[in-house]
Amino acid sequence: MHPFRQYLSSFTTCPDGEWQQIAQAITKKYYKSGTTLLRSGEVCRKLYFVEEGLLRFYILKDGVDVTKFFTIAPYCFTSQRSFTDNTLGKDSIETLEDSVIWEMSKKDAFGLLELPAWNEFVRKLLQEVQYNTEIILEAIQNETAEQRYLKMLEQQDPVLNRVPSKHIASYLGIQPQSLSRIRKKLSQQ
Amino acid sequence: MHPFRQYLSSFTTCPDGEWQQIAQAITKKYYKSGTTLLRSGEVCRKLYFVEEGLLRFYILKDGVDVTKFFTIAPYCFTSQRSFTDNTLGKDSIETLEDSVIWEMSKKDAFGLLELPAWNEFVRKLLQEVQYNTEIILEAIQNETAEQRYLKMLEQQDPVLNRVPSKHIASYLGIQPQSLSRIRKKLSQQ
Repeated sequence: MHPFRQYLSSFTTCPDGEWQQIAQAITKKYYKSGTTLLRSGEVCRKLYFVEEGLLRFYILKDGVDVTKFFTIAPYCFTSQRSFTDNTLGKDSIETLEDSVIWEMSKKDAFGLLELPAWNEFVRKLLQEVQYNTEIILEAIQNETAEQRYLKMLEQQDPVLNRVPSKHIASYLGIQPQSLSRIRKKLSQQ
Repeated sequence: MHPFRQYLSSFTTCPDGEWQQIAQAITKKYYKSGTTLLRSGEVCRKLYFVEEGLLRFYILKDGVDVTKFFTIAPYCFTSQRSFTDNTLGKDSIETLEDSVIWEMSKKDAFGLLELPAWNEFVRKLLQEVQYNTEIILEAIQNETAEQRYLKMLEQQDPVLNRVPSKHIASYLGIQPQSLSRIRKKLSQQ
């Protein structure tokens, strides 16, 4: 089964007729690690499905690069507000690994909403993204960087082995040296 | 115009025929200030529209009450994950003012998705909620409590005049005494 159809099917049943229309609207691209898909200040005009690879969302805060979150295949993503409202986005998105990514134009992503399965998929995807954002928010509101790092260890978060430490530290809201101290402390326990 | 129809119309055009079906699915309730609409550990079975009033979402973290965010009329809300998946929610929701709230059952909220206007409204509402959650997340990741408080002042956030200080402090992730210090410092500048 096509990897994107497989991903869709984890949200809703996608009949053949609908899948054929969706399949015609997506294009496969290969991006080297370190490629910027979207730069802060641009309008995001695509919906993406990452089949293989890993990406980082970040913003520039007073010139400092701050990691918002990571996206690991298989996952569907975009810079939502910019994509929906045609506004200049604050997000930058870059690949942290060589990645296989399917792209759909905004026109198709909205046009296909007439298909019941695509419509249901988009709604459920939005729910999932909202829920995941809320989980990160709750963690930041209620846990220290060390607690959050411990949880990543416990959950064997694949980010830990696949992402440079500086980005993990930034995601945890701390300096790389602080992350080193936490790691050292935990390894001594 | 009915206040809920007016709210819907800020997202999408809602024809008379669809509105009549939506109107039949909502019930008006009056809640005194301090009423708990949902308790952590319960399943959220309703979609709410607050016509008048103000609510607080909070979680219990190791027995400590932590404010996640506030919801001010007019706004549509639920405890999304619990509502969608029938799972026991972590959120508690309480009124902080006497409130006028319209309620819709889960069955109706999902059944009405067949109506194009309701379907579009739900999708756009999810986008809006996701965006608002991301804004709070970005602020917490990148700003100090004092910076966030200053921004609330600049934006003349109505929460400042309508919510007890202890909840604002909790929302900012600090102790009430720290919020007092920030206020004192700002008033001296």
